[in-house]
Amino acid sequence: MGNTFGQLFRVTTFGESHGGGIGVVIDGCPPKIDISEADIQRELDRRRPGQSKITTQRKEEDRCEILSGIFEGKTLGTPIAILVRNQDARPEAYTEMKGTFRPSHADFTYEAKYGIRNWQGGGRASARETIGRVAAGAVARKVLEKLYPKIDIVAYVTQIHEIAAKIDRSKVKIEEVEANIVRCPDEAAAKSMIALIEKVREEGDSIGGVIECVVRNAPAGLGEPVFDKLEADLAKAMLSLPATKGFEIGSGFSATQMRGSEHNDAFEMRDDRVRTSTNKSGGVQGGISNGEEIYFRVAFKPTATIAREQSTVTASHEQTKLAARGRHDPCVLPRAVPMVEAMAALVLCDHALRQRAISSGA
Amino acid sequence: MGNTFGQLFRVTTFGESHGGGIGVVIDGCPPKIDISEADIQRELDRRRPGQSKITTQRKEEDRCEILSGIFEGKTLGTPIAILVRNQDARPEAYTEMKGTFRPSHADFTYEAKYGIRNWQGGGRASARETIGRVAAGAVARKVLEKLYPKIDIVAYVTQIHEIAAKIDRSKVKIEEVEANIVRCPDEAAAKSMIALIEKVREEGDSIGGVIECVVRNAPAGLGEPVFDKLEADLAKAMLSLPATKGFEIGSGFSATQMRGSEHNDAFEMRDDRVRTSTNKSGGVQGGISNGEEIYFRVAFKPTATIAREQSTVTASHEQTKLAARGRHDPCVLPRAVPMVEAMAALVLCDHALRQRAISSGA
Amino acid sequence: MGNTFGQLFRVTTFGESHGGGIGVVIDGCPPKIDISEADIQRELDRRRPGQSKITTQRKEEDRCEILSGIFEGKTLGTPIAILVRNQDARPEAYTEMKGTFRPSHADFTYEAKYGIRNWQGGGRASARETIGRVAAGAVARKVLEKLYPKIDIVAYVTQIHEIAAKIDRSKVKIEEVEANIVRCPDEAAAKSMIALIEKVREEGDSIGGVIECVVRNAPAGLGEPVFDKLEADLAKAMLSLPATKGFEIGSGFSATQMRGSEHNDAFEMRDDRVRTSTNKSGGVQGGISNGEEIYFRVAFKPTATIAREQSTVTASHEQTKLAARGRHDPCVLPRAVPMVEAMAALVLCDHALRQRAISSGA
Amino acid sequence: MGNTFGQLFRVTTFGESHGGGIGVVIDGCPPKIDISEADIQRELDRRRPGQSKITTQRKEEDRCEILSGIFEGKTLGTPIAILVRNQDARPEAYTEMKGTFRPSHADFTYEAKYGIRNWQGGGRASARETIGRVAAGAVARKVLEKLYPKIDIVAYVTQIHEIAAKIDRSKVKIEEVEANIVRCPDEAAAKSMIALIEKVREEGDSIGGVIECVVRNAPAGLGEPVFDKLEADLAKAMLSLPATKGFEIGSGFSATQMRGSEHNDAFEMRDDRVRTSTNKSGGVQGGISNGEEIYFRVAFKPTATIAREQSTVTASHEQTKLAARGRHDPCVLPRAVPMVEAMAALVLCDHALRQRAISSGA
Repeated sequence: MGNTFGQLFRVTTFGESHGGGIGVVIDGCPPKIDISEADIQRELDRRRPGQSKITTQRKEEDRCEILSGIFEGKTLGTPIAILVRNQDARPEAYTEMKGTFRPSHADFTYEAKYGIRNWQGGGRASARETIGRVAAGAVARKVLEKLYPKIDIVAYVTQIHEIAAKIDRSKVKIEEVEANIVRCPDEAAAKSMIALIEKVREEGDSIGGVIECVVRNAPAGLGEPVFDKLEADLAKAMLSLPATKGFEIGSGFSATQMRGSEHNDAFEMRDDRVRTSTNKSGGVQGGISNGEEIYFRVAFKPTATIAREQSTVTASHEQTKLAARGRHDPCVLPRAVPMVEAMAALVLCDHALRQRAISSGA
Repeated sequence: MGNTFGQLFRVTTFGESHGGGIGVVIDGCPPKIDISEADIQRELDRRRPGQSKITTQRKEEDRCEILSGIFEGKTLGTPIAILVRNQDARPEAYTEMKGTFRPSHADFTYEAKYGIRNWQGGGRASARETIGRVAAGAVARKVLEKLYPKIDIVAYVTQIHEIAAKIDRSKVKIEEVEANIVRCPDEAAAKSMIALIEKVREEGDSIGGVIECVVRNAPAGLGEPVFDKLEADLAKAMLSLPATKGFEIGSGFSATQMRGSEHNDAFEMRDDRVRTSTNKSGGVQGGISNGEEIYFRVAFKPTATIAREQSTVTASHEQTKLAARGRHDPCVLPRAVPMVEAMAALVLCDHALRQRAISSGA
Repeated sequence: MGNTFGQLFRVTTFGESHGGGIGVVIDGCPPKIDISEADIQRELDRRRPGQSKITTQRKEEDRCEILSGIFEGKTLGTPIAILVRNQDARPEAYTEMKGTFRPSHADFTYEAKYGIRNWQGGGRASARETIGRVAAGAVARKVLEKLYPKIDIVAYVTQIHEIAAKIDRSKVKIEEVEANIVRCPDEAAAKSMIALIEKVREEGDSIGGVIECVVRNAPAGLGEPVFDKLEADLAKAMLSLPATKGFEIGSGFSATQMRGSEHNDAFEMRDDRVRTSTNKSGGVQGGISNGEEIYFRVAFKPTATIAREQSTVTASHEQTKLAARGRHDPCVLPRAVPMVEAMAALVLCDHALRQRAISSGA
Repeated sequence: MGNTFGQLFRVTTFGESHGGGIGVVIDGCPPKIDISEADIQRELDRRRPGQSKITTQRKEEDRCEILSGIFEGKTLGTPIAILVRNQDARPEAYTEMKGTFRPSHADFTYEAKYGIRNWQGGGRASARETIGRVAAGAVARKVLEKLYPKIDIVAYVTQIHEIAAKIDRSKVKIEEVEANIVRCPDEAAAKSMIALIEKVREEGDSIGGVIECVVRNAPAGLGEPVFDKLEADLAKAMLSLPATKGFEIGSGFSATQMRGSEHNDAFEMRDDRVRTSTNKSGGVQGGISNGEEIYFRVAFKPTATIAREQSTVTASHEQTKLAARGRHDPCVLPRAVPMVEAMAALVLCDHALRQRAISSGA
């Protein structure tokens, strides 16, 4: 259980890091949406390992194949299944993981939960699982663009360790994000971040940071009151990504040190519609979008896999030491940017369909 | 839609702030759990308005009635319906809200979503909705205590505006939380917090803060990998509460400034079982509990309702001014403590049942 | 679990035959639908006990109260909770049931499943549970009528024991159904049926029969392929009603003795649209409505409660004899007619909303 | 939507008859169940085309590949994805279907619902979709056998057109079913059935019939009261299979002509447990299994594809004639037997896990 996301635009991912492959089935996609393997591959390439010097040097092409649900370039309304074969299958590289619990990984908890685990390369807990999410996110984006042609979802790195970027949230473009390998649209900060990541990698260590995401031109009315508030579903979506530790929307934790008179967003008429003068709310009020920019931030911890020796225990409960060998990301954030966008697209697409079900006409 | 929470322990709330009442239906509760109206009332009294000088002075008894699902003091396995009648029904006090959108409230977004709203006292967006959650949380807690007799869920205020408390997360007791009206177990900080809340109220303003929650003695193995990670469901649960803006688990946002070598929790044998030496993970790894303390923090914004005059627009799109009259909470946190505990109990209870479905024997 | 029906128009019922009451929460109802307590009460009155000489003589008014979700006569888009208080609470009349399993009732299976049961009057297994369904069905019908103004859902008794009625499915009107107390629009057959039911009751026995339901002017396109086929959801809906043993759509079991060349419904152009010349399909092809009349039949067994002495065992596993005392329906069909209509309305309304979510515009 | 079945043992199928392949993802399978591709292939071979002279002569091997969820022969608790590639891809054979609606097929309704369809070989409405169900059913059976080692699920053809078989439901073995190509364990009837099917095929026509299924040694306590009654979920499961028109459990439609005194199943003590003397209930009372044999019957219509010329209309709404060319099943029942067993296994497995979630210990 727990491998399906969404109520109407329902995404089910499958696959371990080793084995036949990784994939996703999307049920509930509206018909007649243009979609091609290239649309999906473009997003997969943004999360692919080996894409730059600051990511893991594993080489996996991660080519996607659409198995069903699309015919002559258009969605059929039937389930869209997408498969990416595993290539870098060197289980022998992981034999050490068979008997030892890697600190701050899921080895121990999977064992506690299931009494069995695929110890090769992280198994289901591997970040390879996010391939399915990114592929589904590419489809969700297409649906959203058909429903709301001006909608725009952009995520970017806004902080790496102690280096914070200066970014104009309302203007940042995806091209600026893609302009450098750390996916931070503040060029100066990006340079420092890249240098820091390289240094940390040389030291056999890892670092974390913050990704911010902004959604522009989403309509008012998305989000269901009470449990499925838009920010609640976004929070769940983000905290379901590997290595995340926190989520905040709009003013976030900084709201806790404001007064109501500072924090409230006054309403005003602007562009002939009801707008807010400020946007501390982050585009969501009472769980429902208000037509302003939706923005939120996600905290990522430093990668758990590090080259330094660490204390741990074996599966047979003996004390031991462990140091990761081989190739891993010293910092997950550059590759996590498309994951954040994908999850945001999934949440919005699901709520867009939910809103269509009850609105206009009934 | 969006009024149901949980997969196996399924909670559906209903009710507006004005109208016949507020309530909840719990489907999926295991049979033969001892539960009484007093168990539920105890928790409802903790969230009740008018309970102290720093909460709203509205007087509502919020007496619960169990309509079904419990027989001779025990759960039947059938749906448990609980109803609390609305008492403070003075719709005339709200006529101003009929035609005007209150800043940072849900008036405008409900109108945008549904094209209709119950404008009396916030309707469905009122925090009265949480009555159903707190009642269900009381039942969930009973189930958890039967499954794991030593489990302990404690939430408390850890920050009000700029006043931060010092609290030993591992030792804090619910009695210490209940010892003062702001529900902060650091007595000195609590005094300052109470004074500040009173001052802010006199100034016609409001403030926010942070609630922390710790779950002790939960077993390892709760939480489903991928989308229904324990922290993802906790994040959703907390962000679905009114006035919340952020969530962090374990190290949270502070993890973004650590290195992997600092952040990783080494495993060790302790008490004859696998333990972690530190607990930056917050008791969850790979989305599954590891048997350590689960702890997280929730950011609450300052109450949107303030006595000061604010700019806004009317439903017919004219600029106007609005100042809240009457009774409201200058700070929601004291009453939000039982809500946070309730939502934590709902998440844990649901995952406990989910884990039972697949474990031991199959 | 198992007390919720529907994906988008979600209905959760609660309540035992004895205790605080019986009710329903409807989540996902579109906003701005006109609905009043009178609309709901009209349907409840059709299923009410004591409505005629051939139903149980229990007197329960079954007055409904709308607790939430409706404001100034219109749905809000928020959960609609409806409560009917239990009145005929004479638990002492049921003490015999406490220790003895009634044959072909749910006493034994509830005990086997839950290890506990409310033995008063059937508890959750009582047909009183259908109050919630009928109330929700009244709301669903209102939604359907707004979406498809010409839609028409009519159920009627077509067979009681060996008495079969002659009814023109395409023309039968609800007024004709309501014209007699057995709800069979063939007056001659109805008379015989009523006489038979009275005779059977005098003999301390019970009988069953068949209810047919026809839906006219439903649009083409309702129903989801594969698992949630329209006929699959109708079958589930009907088999979830108490005392049902079978379901058939269109040609049903008679199709098993036809050849394809007889059974296939040729397409033709008629009324300027694609129609079928015959309708063996029952209005559904490949799980999706085709715009023709949807019709199906439901088999009801004879009421399990009979006045004759029967062999059974006690809860402590001793052989005993049991004869029902007091008031019960010798034949459930007259009161089941509104239940069948209600469940049909719930299925169609749910699929109508599901279809809206994916169609037109995306 | 509508491509997922089950609450806890959740099965999502995907794939069109033409395109990359057909498959299934199973989420919620308990860990540590032994399962191999051979276990799945065995069942797939029973539904494979070309398996005998009375099925379609299409040749497709339908080899399955397990993509995920199984490691070293055991389930991991993670999603099990199974893929069967399409081979018989001759879209040119189907060009006629592009522009013409085949009578009693889903061509017209898919067009009405989605405004687009994959016209090659039936697309998603093809019976090839059931490959995913049969594969998942093989896994479900393994889970059930681990939970209840003596459980036994056997389906068989009991009627073809007017030929009815004589079968002892309580004793029939799967080997007897597999002993002939029509899967009817009454050898004499089987011979007549085979002869009739061959004759009907020669005449360019098709026929239907009835499949019965019996589940022996299921425990008491499976099934959720109210909407998810065991028989309701079985009815849905069966009516979701292609070409089905009816379902009856236990006494079924014959119950409508019995009296309560004949129909009720008296309880008695037997084998040291509570048993029923007769089993008109079909093993289910109040929606919950009572430990007796669960048995039900499913009506299948004659195959819609026939070689005879039929009247129909084109997609551009012109009258035309159509006669199927090529290879098709003159009677679907022999290949539907494993489908019925698979769907029964899915329902029971799901309810077994649901029952585990609430029972014993809580």
